[in-house]
Amino acid sequence: MKIGIINGANLNALGTREPKVYGKFSLLEIENKLKAEFSSDELSFFQSNLEGELVSQIQDWSDQMDALVINAGGYTHTSVVIADAIAACSLPVIEVHMSNVFARENFRHISLLGAHCSASISGMGWESYVLGIQAAERLLRK
Amino acid sequence: MKIGIINGANLNALGTREPKVYGKFSLLEIENKLKAEFSSDELSFFQSNLEGELVSQIQDWSDQMDALVINAGGYTHTSVVIADAIAACSLPVIEVHMSNVFARENFRHISLLGAHCSASISGMGWESYVLGIQAAERLLRK
Amino acid sequence: MKIGIINGANLNALGTREPKVYGKFSLLEIENKLKAEFSSDELSFFQSNLEGELVSQIQDWSDQMDALVINAGGYTHTSVVIADAIAACSLPVIEVHMSNVFARENFRHISLLGAHCSASISGMGWESYVLGIQAAERLLRK
Amino acid sequence: MKIGIINGANLNALGTREPKVYGKFSLLEIENKLKAEFSSDELSFFQSNLEGELVSQIQDWSDQMDALVINAGGYTHTSVVIADAIAACSLPVIEVHMSNVFARENFRHISLLGAHCSASISGMGWESYVLGIQAAERLLRK
Amino acid sequence: MKIGIINGANLNALGTREPKVYGKFSLLEIENKLKAEFSSDELSFFQSNLEGELVSQIQDWSDQMDALVINAGGYTHTSVVIADAIAACSLPVIEVHMSNVFARENFRHISLLGAHCSASISGMGWESYVLGIQAAERLLRK
Amino acid sequence: MKIGIINGANLNALGTREPKVYGKFSLLEIENKLKAEFSSDELSFFQSNLEGELVSQIQDWSDQMDALVINAGGYTHTSVVIADAIAACSLPVIEVHMSNVFARENFRHISLLGAHCSASISGMGWESYVLGIQAAERLLRK
Amino acid sequence: MKIGIINGANLNALGTREPKVYGKFSLLEIENKLKAEFSSDELSFFQSNLEGELVSQIQDWSDQMDALVINAGGYTHTSVVIADAIAACSLPVIEVHMSNVFARENFRHISLLGAHCSASISGMGWESYVLGIQAAERLLRK
Amino acid sequence: MKIGIINGANLNALGTREPKVYGKFSLLEIENKLKAEFSSDELSFFQSNLEGELVSQIQDWSDQMDALVINAGGYTHTSVVIADAIAACSLPVIEVHMSNVFARENFRHISLLGAHCSASISGMGWESYVLGIQAAERLLRK
Amino acid sequence: MKIGIINGANLNALGTREPKVYGKFSLLEIENKLKAEFSSDELSFFQSNLEGELVSQIQDWSDQMDALVINAGGYTHTSVVIADAIAACSLPVIEVHMSNVFARENFRHISLLGAHCSASISGMGWESYVLGIQAAERLLRK
Amino acid sequence: MKIGIINGANLNALGTREPKVYGKFSLLEIENKLKAEFSSDELSFFQSNLEGELVSQIQDWSDQMDALVINAGGYTHTSVVIADAIAACSLPVIEVHMSNVFARENFRHISLLGAHCSASISGMGWESYVLGIQAAERLLRK
Amino acid sequence: MKIGIINGANLNALGTREPKVYGKFSLLEIENKLKAEFSSDELSFFQSNLEGELVSQIQDWSDQMDALVINAGGYTHTSVVIADAIAACSLPVIEVHMSNVFARENFRHISLLGAHCSASISGMGWESYVLGIQAAERLLRK
Amino acid sequence: MKIGIINGANLNALGTREPKVYGKFSLLEIENKLKAEFSSDELSFFQSNLEGELVSQIQDWSDQMDALVINAGGYTHTSVVIADAIAACSLPVIEVHMSNVFARENFRHISLLGAHCSASISGMGWESYVLGIQAAERLLRK
Repeated sequence: MKIGIINGANLNALGTREPKVYGKFSLLEIENKLKAEFSSDELSFFQSNLEGELVSQIQDWSDQMDALVINAGGYTHTSVVIADAIAACSLPVIEVHMSNVFARENFRHISLLGAHCSASISGMGWESYVLGIQAAERLLRK
Repeated sequence: MKIGIINGANLNALGTREPKVYGKFSLLEIENKLKAEFSSDELSFFQSNLEGELVSQIQDWSDQMDALVINAGGYTHTSVVIADAIAACSLPVIEVHMSNVFARENFRHISLLGAHCSASISGMGWESYVLGIQAAERLLRK
Repeated sequence: MKIGIINGANLNALGTREPKVYGKFSLLEIENKLKAEFSSDELSFFQSNLEGELVSQIQDWSDQMDALVINAGGYTHTSVVIADAIAACSLPVIEVHMSNVFARENFRHISLLGAHCSASISGMGWESYVLGIQAAERLLRK
Repeated sequence: MKIGIINGANLNALGTREPKVYGKFSLLEIENKLKAEFSSDELSFFQSNLEGELVSQIQDWSDQMDALVINAGGYTHTSVVIADAIAACSLPVIEVHMSNVFARENFRHISLLGAHCSASISGMGWESYVLGIQAAERLLRK
Repeated sequence: MKIGIINGANLNALGTREPKVYGKFSLLEIENKLKAEFSSDELSFFQSNLEGELVSQIQDWSDQMDALVINAGGYTHTSVVIADAIAACSLPVIEVHMSNVFARENFRHISLLGAHCSASISGMGWESYVLGIQAAERLLRK
Repeated sequence: MKIGIINGANLNALGTREPKVYGKFSLLEIENKLKAEFSSDELSFFQSNLEGELVSQIQDWSDQMDALVINAGGYTHTSVVIADAIAACSLPVIEVHMSNVFARENFRHISLLGAHCSASISGMGWESYVLGIQAAERLLRK
Repeated sequence: MKIGIINGANLNALGTREPKVYGKFSLLEIENKLKAEFSSDELSFFQSNLEGELVSQIQDWSDQMDALVINAGGYTHTSVVIADAIAACSLPVIEVHMSNVFARENFRHISLLGAHCSASISGMGWESYVLGIQAAERLLRK
Repeated sequence: MKIGIINGANLNALGTREPKVYGKFSLLEIENKLKAEFSSDELSFFQSNLEGELVSQIQDWSDQMDALVINAGGYTHTSVVIADAIAACSLPVIEVHMSNVFARENFRHISLLGAHCSASISGMGWESYVLGIQAAERLLRK
Repeated sequence: MKIGIINGANLNALGTREPKVYGKFSLLEIENKLKAEFSSDELSFFQSNLEGELVSQIQDWSDQMDALVINAGGYTHTSVVIADAIAACSLPVIEVHMSNVFARENFRHISLLGAHCSASISGMGWESYVLGIQAAERLLRK
Repeated sequence: MKIGIINGANLNALGTREPKVYGKFSLLEIENKLKAEFSSDELSFFQSNLEGELVSQIQDWSDQMDALVINAGGYTHTSVVIADAIAACSLPVIEVHMSNVFARENFRHISLLGAHCSASISGMGWESYVLGIQAAERLLRK
Repeated sequence: MKIGIINGANLNALGTREPKVYGKFSLLEIENKLKAEFSSDELSFFQSNLEGELVSQIQDWSDQMDALVINAGGYTHTSVVIADAIAACSLPVIEVHMSNVFARENFRHISLLGAHCSASISGMGWESYVLGIQAAERLLRK
Repeated sequence: MKIGIINGANLNALGTREPKVYGKFSLLEIENKLKAEFSSDELSFFQSNLEGELVSQIQDWSDQMDALVINAGGYTHTSVVIADAIAACSLPVIEVHMSNVFARENFRHISLLGAHCSASISGMGWESYVLGIQAAERLLRK
């Protein structure tokens, strides 16, 4: 299956940014671990700090992928336009968060994207992506 | 008259995105229809999914156009910086929306941009742009 | 086309009431200008300061007109009953405001009527009615 | 591994209650599917409609299980006492929901339990439990 | 007709608890008065102070009764799980309150159950049950 | 008994207005059905779309009737002055609603009138008036 | 001096309505007392239960009186249109209330009219009108 | 009659502080004008910038005066302790404000003191004190 | 004196649950310490994790005890029904908390029970019960 | 032990101020009763109506006393600076209230001081001080 | 230049109060450091724990100083009267805070004074005063 | 020292945009003035209208600079992702604003960035940058 994995703002700094919260692996290391674990899938990765580029990527992959796994970072809580892009996308979209957002600041408890995603996974560190891809596979098999 | 028409996030997906809400025409088709209907005006078009590029375009066109017509899409409800750019722009600016935003989710009832625009038009589908350009013409004639 | 134009509270005082906000024309002058501009339509006018009379007029014109253009004045922000009357009316209803309500007090940013209207136009002074009638014509032609 | 799976109010009615939201399987059928899929784990199941019995079960299993997977149903959004019980429990606790709670009524967007769980999974129907158990296994392996 | 009448927390204390608000009759006396008045119906009664037992009773009676009349007492204003149980029940459900809840503390003005009931009656003292059963009969006859 | 039945805004449009919500009977048909069902009572009917006329009617009937049954329509949620008129009226006043207001928009969950009425009935369609009159009879008999 | 005294909803019921709050005098008795006390002024009186008639009267008296004294009753707290009419009126307008509105329900603490009046007087029973007229005289003398 | 007139924070700066809002007279000039106007009363004056001294003065004058007239300045909107002192005082207390507080910032619309005063007067400049003393005289005469 | 001491959810886990917050003593140890300290009183103890059982116990002890001391645990902040049961109980009821609830999460600052209790004590660890019983003794002696 | 007892605004008026709420004893009488009851402690008393003097006294006694007992009166609900002074004080500080603040106005349910005190006692009349001193003794003995 | 430096509640306790937040220097030490650093200016210092004395000092220095630097401590967030005094003062006023108020409790994010000051500086420890005086010098030089 | 100065949206328009608020100097002129004033430091400048580019620049400069001075413009009030980037950056970061944000619209009173910056300076026009750099120097010297 072709699964697009989209990472938003500040996730390019994984491994150096607050490792107690986000773990010690860089984004590249996580991508490699995911490719190894899901070798029978075709995983594609995109990261951007720019809200609008995330919108464009969701649009572009809407007819190139089988499913999307999205960690929009801080945009999760503020971005109407990413939410609109997901709502317009007919693929299964899985929202993932590395940290348990419900144990952090109040404004992180609200996800503008969540209402338009199929499923949501949080709190598993880099393994949230693993579960997110498994969720995508299960949704596609239905 | 020289009128700049600015479209924000997700409007590049018109025609495919939720056609029941936004109609069947692509953005290019709408631009062509507007050019045909307003052949005596000089219409320029800009679309971007990036909030900051919309800011830059408003700045750039501030001394190149006679008026602006803006559909900022989802940024309408969240963007202080686009509102600031419009406030700094001395041209007449007309806010347009294709859907009737007041009949949708609560967060779409609030326009951060509205206070700094001259006029606002919503609910007419692609014809909202037609009325928006007519409004610009009328304001310029005053 | 037969278009009913309904004006609510305090709009009978146009021309004398805060001319900087609402312009120098009396309601009668505006009505005459509209009749002149839309001579091929059959325009009917109604004004009342009484909320309930506005409800009754919407009910009465529901099967006598092709479309309604409504400026409910201050009732826009408080009247559930006018909103209910519009919701029960199967004609296209266009909400118009002379001033840009989004640039005024906070309580004027909310329109109880808006959710039940087809389209909304504000900020064009007396020409808001012109655009409102044009919008009605376009909606009827669809 | 010994994993306790706790289901709260109304989940005993699965299969008959709003099958469009919650799927066609009864709770027993889901339990059997989970036992089949995780035959090398020792799964225990508990369901109660009573908030206080859920509290007691969390207390009891705190030193009998390796991890807990909890779907508290409607208590998710109102129960301080279940949240307190989870906070007092030193096992990994995974919160699961069959439906995508973020696409439902506003009061379901808030989880009082979430802050005290390790991870959260929603939107996968009965397979939310599958991912929840996988998450528990991964957390225990760390 | 078979009508199940469910009473929630503190209603077992009727007659002794704040008689100025709730009247002088015990719950048993009210039940006897209702049986006398509706001798051609088959009335069943259930009272519990436990939220979860009320949920279970609604589930159990869902395929044993023709209609339910529910006075959930203080749970009316806090219980998502009883509301969920009513929503899952396909019988007509009538919400009743002895006191006029709108004349009491603010938190009693909101009923979480109301949205999922067919009808609501309050303020008639023990006769609220009489009207509630009459309402059930009328709804069943439709 | 002499019972005054007062209907507020938009209830003159019953039968044609949103029949799925409000039923197929006109207000006149409902009045005739009520007269037939309560032939031993003396029923009087009043309807107005004007808030102030409802106030005046409550005042007038305060010493001409034995009880009032009021469906204020949309004024239920906004009218301090009708609430004041009911508070000043020493008759039993029963609030009725045809639809189940708790299952509709949030602003319809609040009744300004409720605190000053004796009882409240909603959700029974035109039969809400039947139960309302029965409630009035019971209150008068006490 | 010519002073117009405008009374809103339910003030026609003075003397009979809640005499502990509003005193034992009827509106006519109060008017006579005021005429006696201010025999050198020309006092005119108007009362209506209809919001829109209060708007019209403010408009009409705007160029016939020297000052207005207004007790809008319950409309004080809800009427944007009366506030708009006062804002459009260039006379001194004095807001009066018989009761001390700050010692009553919360919603009576807010006056939509207050921002557009010159002065406000409350809590003096019928003598609030006396002070209101004295205030008008003083403002006119300035 | 013995009337105590209490002025709170910043009122010692009258005449120099924002004269457009508060007038050109100093507090001493106002006191002299009041003594002249009410020569048959025994007026006493107290001013302090300290919240606690205002409390003490209200306590002290509670059995030395016939009535109090209070302009607490900015403490009006924040002081629970002055409100408590007024509540404990059995004299008639008249709240006065020179400016129309309802036309100023939102936080000035709320008076913590108002609920415990007999009457309230605002918007008359220094003449608010005149009306305040007249109100006190009238209340004492009752 | 006969004093009933009621403990709510999670207090059966004292000694093991977050000992930094709640201390090292088990509930049984605390009960024994209290019996030793108040040997001349007749102390009875009840603990339940179930909200409804706490309601029933308050009802049962209403005519068997001289006073009640209640630590409802997490139900303190959410339970209308326990509050209703206390309101219906004519004994002195003392609310106690081991931790200082005002120094914890915001939702713990609000006690639904407090309004109906005679007195409230918090922050003394297990000695809060000691003070609670002393308070009960003092109230009974009055 | 040396215990400082600090009383805030209006507590100097005890005995005369609302005796139904605060009891019949003057502050001096209460002080004498406390000295009699705690003859082995060294009690010091301070009362002021001035917020800042309460701050200064807390600062002064911080290294002269073993513990503080504070009833800040109305400042409890508004004073950030007293809260700051308590937070800076390393002694055990016990908050006391004579009335049950939770049964009074909403604004009295919030204590700004509470988060920085060790314990809190309310509702026992003058005996709240007794329990407060006992609490201080117990905290000092730990 | 003559610069008045005003310190509010609890700042007299600097050096001993929470040194991790406020640093190790006493207020006197800071004053001496400032005098040394700004030897060509004439610095005057005032500290009080009393809100009203801060008001009086601002009034007094309004025509004795060239500029004011104010750290109102906890009064920053609650004092309308200090804000009023600053608004009435025509000097440049610089608000300073030693700690970064935005990283502390929510209620410290709001400054009632800020709207009336020329500039604001926070987070630099005692050096906030240095920058504050530099800011005052720069504003005076304009 | 190496100090990075980051400017957000619309600050490229300085000099032309609302000069009364933001001053007459262009951003380039301000940069030159700063270079002249701080010739011994190594100042680097970056401006972008794009939120994500500001995030990237903070990330890039995190190990290239000694400190950052940031004026995020309108993003100050809405950007979680810039706040996250600052939180992840271990350099001292100084927030600056040219205008006094506390004297402007309410939404500008809240800074999402502030909690993660070391210090904050506002209201000094272009000299806010001067003080910001001085603050950075002082923090680095500690």
